[in-house]
Amino acid sequence: MFHKILIANRGEIALRIIRTCKEMGIKTVAVYSTADSESLHVKLADESVCIGPAPSLSSYLNINAIISAAELTDAEAIHPGYGFLSENPIFAEICEKCGITFIGPSAESMRIMGDKISARQAVIKVGVPILPGTKEGVHDVNEAIRVAKEIGFPVIIKATAGGGGRGMKIVHSPAALPNAFATARAEAQSGFGNPEVYIERYCESPRHVEIQILADKHGNVVHLGERDCSIQRRHQKVIEEAPSTVTTPELRKAMGEAAVAAAKAVNYCSVGTMEFLVDKNNNFFFMEMNTRVQVEHPVTEMVTGVDVVKEQIRSAYGLKLRYTQDDIKIKGHSIECRINAEDSVKFTPCPGKITDHHTPGGLGVRVDSFVYTNYSVLPHYDSLIAKLIVHADTREEAIKRMARALDEYIVEGIKTTIPFHKRIMANKDFIEGNIDTGFIERLVLE
Amino acid sequence: MFHKILIANRGEIALRIIRTCKEMGIKTVAVYSTADSESLHVKLADESVCIGPAPSLSSYLNINAIISAAELTDAEAIHPGYGFLSENPIFAEICEKCGITFIGPSAESMRIMGDKISARQAVIKVGVPILPGTKEGVHDVNEAIRVAKEIGFPVIIKATAGGGGRGMKIVHSPAALPNAFATARAEAQSGFGNPEVYIERYCESPRHVEIQILADKHGNVVHLGERDCSIQRRHQKVIEEAPSTVTTPELRKAMGEAAVAAAKAVNYCSVGTMEFLVDKNNNFFFMEMNTRVQVEHPVTEMVTGVDVVKEQIRSAYGLKLRYTQDDIKIKGHSIECRINAEDSVKFTPCPGKITDHHTPGGLGVRVDSFVYTNYSVLPHYDSLIAKLIVHADTREEAIKRMARALDEYIVEGIKTTIPFHKRIMANKDFIEGNIDTGFIERLVLE
Repeated sequence: MFHKILIANRGEIALRIIRTCKEMGIKTVAVYSTADSESLHVKLADESVCIGPAPSLSSYLNINAIISAAELTDAEAIHPGYGFLSENPIFAEICEKCGITFIGPSAESMRIMGDKISARQAVIKVGVPILPGTKEGVHDVNEAIRVAKEIGFPVIIKATAGGGGRGMKIVHSPAALPNAFATARAEAQSGFGNPEVYIERYCESPRHVEIQILADKHGNVVHLGERDCSIQRRHQKVIEEAPSTVTTPELRKAMGEAAVAAAKAVNYCSVGTMEFLVDKNNNFFFMEMNTRVQVEHPVTEMVTGVDVVKEQIRSAYGLKLRYTQDDIKIKGHSIECRINAEDSVKFTPCPGKITDHHTPGGLGVRVDSFVYTNYSVLPHYDSLIAKLIVHADTREEAIKRMARALDEYIVEGIKTTIPFHKRIMANKDFIEGNIDTGFIERLVLE
Repeated sequence: MFHKILIANRGEIALRIIRTCKEMGIKTVAVYSTADSESLHVKLADESVCIGPAPSLSSYLNINAIISAAELTDAEAIHPGYGFLSENPIFAEICEKCGITFIGPSAESMRIMGDKISARQAVIKVGVPILPGTKEGVHDVNEAIRVAKEIGFPVIIKATAGGGGRGMKIVHSPAALPNAFATARAEAQSGFGNPEVYIERYCESPRHVEIQILADKHGNVVHLGERDCSIQRRHQKVIEEAPSTVTTPELRKAMGEAAVAAAKAVNYCSVGTMEFLVDKNNNFFFMEMNTRVQVEHPVTEMVTGVDVVKEQIRSAYGLKLRYTQDDIKIKGHSIECRINAEDSVKFTPCPGKITDHHTPGGLGVRVDSFVYTNYSVLPHYDSLIAKLIVHADTREEAIKRMARALDEYIVEGIKTTIPFHKRIMANKDFIEGNIDTGFIERLVLE
């Protein structure tokens, strides 16, 4: 096994990776920006290297500085976490050229899955269902109107290179299309440096259901069941759970097999996630693949007992998967609440000093966080300060456990989204499982 | 189900009970001494009642004050936790007379199992093995010498009414017996108000292995497998784990069946624990029964998925057990470290103000604690401030997880036993499972 891994990230995911490395007997190197010198990932790693000033471009996205830090410390591998350089195929290639193992898929798999059009093309070939839509970029407004009529309204315009909601436009009629098309292209250009967009059928009131997969470098792929991530605000996930309340054993099997086939189609060899939309009739449609560990991976760990980060590191080292599909059993129910340093009504970021901090405990409660009393949440980075995860026998019990854990959680000095999560845990529709991706929008309007 | 439960305890066990009550939708009443007004159990309960000054006799052992608090708040039931009034049959009877459900076994079961001689008599009848020894109290030194010779040296003298090591004397020869007999009687008198002692064969280098049982009021009893509590200091448990490294499926089945038979023999109807000694040849001998929830119950919860406190409350309400023996599966391995506010070399209590507090997190880590930053650990009560519990697929992984979790644990301002636990997690004999009840004594002498 690797003797030393550099973690090219910060925050809770850096700690998450350090924890598994420690348990595997692997030494860790933290990298950090000057602003992050008091961060817990720096304190808990065996070694640490400052890689530049606070702006991410100068530090956590600074490939040269990160490669130098790995060489300086003799790290044999780099774990990119999520965000930052985690889905950058150039970074993966540079790592390999420098003789450092990139803990993730090959640059080629990343390139195919990182581009929505080539990703769709790849999965269509192995029979994975996708929403009716253009297989390639649409470059002209008249073409856009023609294909939208073919597909049938409502349609959604999406940036080929994009993600996270930017450049997305829902269009209900031909008359509204020219304006939306132009805006989407402009947002795609400014957001991702590429104006190309494509068009597909818009699925109303869908569920966001995704499949976690594990793959090794020997062609073996298994899936770990699904996560329901329908509780989103502006396309950002807020609460995730496993299993999904809409998933039957048959649907899980069908989605799981589709995810495995899609992974095999691109010779995928790490952990990754296939994101699907599920409509009201339980039809599912491939959206995209995330070629990295995701924020919400803990709920899958809680119901399967598999340490996703450990399997990712083992796979990167070249070991064969320890699990066959039959070994994977889903047990109980898990929910994760993302605790952000944000106002819980307006959702504006709220950085600042945490003056008091007390985390919940007890049976079935897991906290993945990196903050502590007197830590200052920085304005430079995203506002996630903790993930509160619970596990229980049933969804009903998991919701009650989450509610009591949220009641115990104390974060003073800054505002957090804890009150918002408490509200959701008490919401009748959420409790009954009547959720789709429009849930929070409706809740906020109430 | 009960609407409101009063918790006649403090510290981590009071929180443990509050957590399950909240998850079951049951309101809670905390009672507290004047010294405990800043305790977390007071803050987290729905209501709280001060029951007297700091000395336990005036508050947590003050039956009148506790019954009054229950009547004042309309609590339908009292959960006694462990220690204090939890094994006091008079208290259980008074509760019942006042129309309050005592969450525990009947006073009669408690009386039989609370007296070591009647407990031995009860279990012998149903074929549970015990160490050779006197079935009744030995009142005279000549009688003591005669029976010790019959049993065979070494023997151990124990207080009939005692527990926890007080009044226990190991005797290797007839010459040493008179002195030990007199001392044991004197300690029994001063410790438990009853000088009576009995004599049994002393088992050298034994394991302490105990079986958790669940029983309802309808005669159903299941066991939840064993806990190995061999890591003790002066008969106080320090580290517990499940399963035991000596337990084969056959031994678990035999011990489990013995525990269930013993529980049925006394019409037991709550959660409880049968403690056994296991010798080097995997023979097991009944020692005693604890007729309450134990400090170390979480390791059983982690490997079985059963919420022991929830089942205890359900059983007290009169519900039937939800589990048959076949439903109980042991999954993975769990370890608990008792974190005490003590010097980790001399084990002297170290009360005082906690100036900084940060608990570990991540996959497979559970913290059951009641302290927080700026909380003052009180000199009046026992020194347990937290239980750190881990769960993993294997014992080897659980030890590594515990070691990394201990590394993350920060308690400043007072001394704790965290450094001692780190030492044990790195100890070759512990890692290899070469443990018996003399482990810590040998470690301390090293």
